[in-house]
Amino acid sequence: MSIAYDEGDVREVAARARVASHDLALATRAVKDAALHAMADGLLAAAPEVLAANAEDVTRAEGNGTPPNIIDRLRLDDDRLEAMAAGLREVAGLPDPVGEVVRGSTLANGLELRQVRVPFGVVGMIYEARPNVTADAAGICLKSGNAVLLRGSSSARSSNAAIVTALRTALLASGLPEDAVQLVPGDSHDSVKALMRARGLVDVLIPRGGAGLIRSVVEESTVPVIETGVGNCHVYVDASADLEQALAIVVNAKTHRTSVCNAAESLLVHADIADDFLPQVIDALHEREVTIHGDDRFTEYDGVVEATEEDFGAEYLSLDISAAVVDDVEAAIRHIRTHSSGHTDAIVARDQATIRRFVASVDSAAVLVNASTRFTDGGEFGFGAEIGISTQKLHARGPMGLPEMTSTKYVVIGDGHIR
Amino acid sequence: MSIAYDEGDVREVAARARVASHDLALATRAVKDAALHAMADGLLAAAPEVLAANAEDVTRAEGNGTPPNIIDRLRLDDDRLEAMAAGLREVAGLPDPVGEVVRGSTLANGLELRQVRVPFGVVGMIYEARPNVTADAAGICLKSGNAVLLRGSSSARSSNAAIVTALRTALLASGLPEDAVQLVPGDSHDSVKALMRARGLVDVLIPRGGAGLIRSVVEESTVPVIETGVGNCHVYVDASADLEQALAIVVNAKTHRTSVCNAAESLLVHADIADDFLPQVIDALHEREVTIHGDDRFTEYDGVVEATEEDFGAEYLSLDISAAVVDDVEAAIRHIRTHSSGHTDAIVARDQATIRRFVASVDSAAVLVNASTRFTDGGEFGFGAEIGISTQKLHARGPMGLPEMTSTKYVVIGDGHIR
Repeated sequence: MSIAYDEGDVREVAARARVASHDLALATRAVKDAALHAMADGLLAAAPEVLAANAEDVTRAEGNGTPPNIIDRLRLDDDRLEAMAAGLREVAGLPDPVGEVVRGSTLANGLELRQVRVPFGVVGMIYEARPNVTADAAGICLKSGNAVLLRGSSSARSSNAAIVTALRTALLASGLPEDAVQLVPGDSHDSVKALMRARGLVDVLIPRGGAGLIRSVVEESTVPVIETGVGNCHVYVDASADLEQALAIVVNAKTHRTSVCNAAESLLVHADIADDFLPQVIDALHEREVTIHGDDRFTEYDGVVEATEEDFGAEYLSLDISAAVVDDVEAAIRHIRTHSSGHTDAIVARDQATIRRFVASVDSAAVLVNASTRFTDGGEFGFGAEIGISTQKLHARGPMGLPEMTSTKYVVIGDGHIR
Repeated sequence: MSIAYDEGDVREVAARARVASHDLALATRAVKDAALHAMADGLLAAAPEVLAANAEDVTRAEGNGTPPNIIDRLRLDDDRLEAMAAGLREVAGLPDPVGEVVRGSTLANGLELRQVRVPFGVVGMIYEARPNVTADAAGICLKSGNAVLLRGSSSARSSNAAIVTALRTALLASGLPEDAVQLVPGDSHDSVKALMRARGLVDVLIPRGGAGLIRSVVEESTVPVIETGVGNCHVYVDASADLEQALAIVVNAKTHRTSVCNAAESLLVHADIADDFLPQVIDALHEREVTIHGDDRFTEYDGVVEATEEDFGAEYLSLDISAAVVDDVEAAIRHIRTHSSGHTDAIVARDQATIRRFVASVDSAAVLVNASTRFTDGGEFGFGAEIGISTQKLHARGPMGLPEMTSTKYVVIGDGHIR
């Protein structure tokens, strides 16, 4: 079922967001933080409505034959609602990025120059399944002074509508414009298209979800896009590695949580330690039911599946890993340049020159040394809230916290200066 | 005449740039600065070849009936070559942005987190007429560690080819890859298209030129774009202004140089001072042969032309200015929100609350207080070199110096950290 709508509806909603963004940009931190607490309270007060709406979504998904793991992501309960409310309160506790002076000086002619953080204006979020993203994104956008247009998955439409109703009521009671948080009307692909073409009304689009969603937004959008999250992450184990450390890091990076973008998807091992390390790592991964898609050197061992070229480019998000033996750190760098998605790549090594070379030459959002790829995360980095992990080079790269949700402007103050 | 080429040629050139970018990213400041001086020397040594090539371009342009002002922009002479060489040496003197630690901390678990500036990789420049941009862009990209693909105007193709040959020879002699600086082959629109679609090979496109060029790149490119330079800049004269200052600022902003993006194109005057200020400003502008396209209040005076709605959105780049009387600062803000291109808008006022309101509510790359719009410029801001003035909100906003030509990556160092 697809709700009827036309492009005009989306533009109208975006135009209302634009108006709301003007007030929001001027709101003080105190007002925004009070609103975030009111949103948390409102969400918990609306628990019966939100859970009833969520039950509709779950019933519909079950009727569609949706796989159980997706239904689990869709399902809300009291604990998950509490977590959403706690997330909003946590954002209230973070510093306000708006107004931060990024750079400042007095020029030779006496002009005072200040580069100051300002909100983008209107942010469009396009995301899949999990309804908790609805509250998270609303909170992060509000704190950074941005109006947000939310386009969640149609499978979560009843949940998202109930959540947004609760949040908007709280905004209004806090004296902020309720149109600072809006759902994009319609649930067909056409409404996403209209959002992607609302250049001038929407300042930035952030897609969160699978590689297919992100690619289609990047290719079709005329609104500037921040790409997030596809992770084909590598762990390279150098000849100089502490092999015990290496084993723990590989196992953690692959198995700690498989469905996330910072999980390891590919293992590279230096040839000089292959005879020693391969049996250990293969055993440890097999023990945790990981399927290893290996090159010739790996398939010498029992239970390793032969890797295809596609395997080395794959983001499995499952208990699978591609694996190859490389001649040296240069070969590892070349392999990573060819196959990495530019999210997170790690080296395990003790030799300082090798580490320096790897860090300088691997061009990814995060390069980790002797640490699990799982650490690339806004929470782990201490940012307190994360809207996604950017894998592009413009504007923001890596985990995006509140400062990454802002632009800047120059304020230049004189007393009659002319050239 | 359009030189035959196919999309494969552009992709091949881009792929060579990508390879060159790997070496360039590792080059030290000392090596890059030596190369910049060698490029300056090489350019001067090649003066006979460059000037001969330029003479070809000028002859062809004259044959085409190109207007004299465009031919003037195209023409090179010894002075202009000296200026290009001096520009390269000036870039050598600027700090290297690559490797700058933007943010750093030690996390609670002992992980060391560093956000470090790194080159984009491959930058595509699409620009019009002036051949000096060829050397400027090559120098700025080299210093920021980026390989550059240059797509100048076909009218300057002989000049650009001669300049690039000189620069590449100097690069090679300096031990850097000559493919760090390349011309995009072909001079039809198809070669621009191929560049705009080389996603994955080209990291960012920077169009410099007229509004039409920039709009077409923004709309057609799948490579991320940094928009530059369209300026419909306003000067708002508040009731609290020092009228003598206001007069000097309006005249300077409009007439100091008309063909530049930071020239004023629109004048707004508070109603309370209209009777006093309008005769003065109209006289002063008429004296400098400015055509005023005014609203009802302005057309009460002799010689003011009636403004159409298009006038208020126009970037004249000539001795023309649109002009209107507004009721108050709120009306000025609304007018600017509707018509400004988001480049530079200025207020002339003494009342602090009015200034605060204007600065907070006008969402442009630069907001100037009691100063001419002409100050929005990388050189004036003390950045030393400027690749353009960004009018978009993502990544860079306002004059773009060397730091704006970089991305960042996170380097995270542990000693066996797992989650």
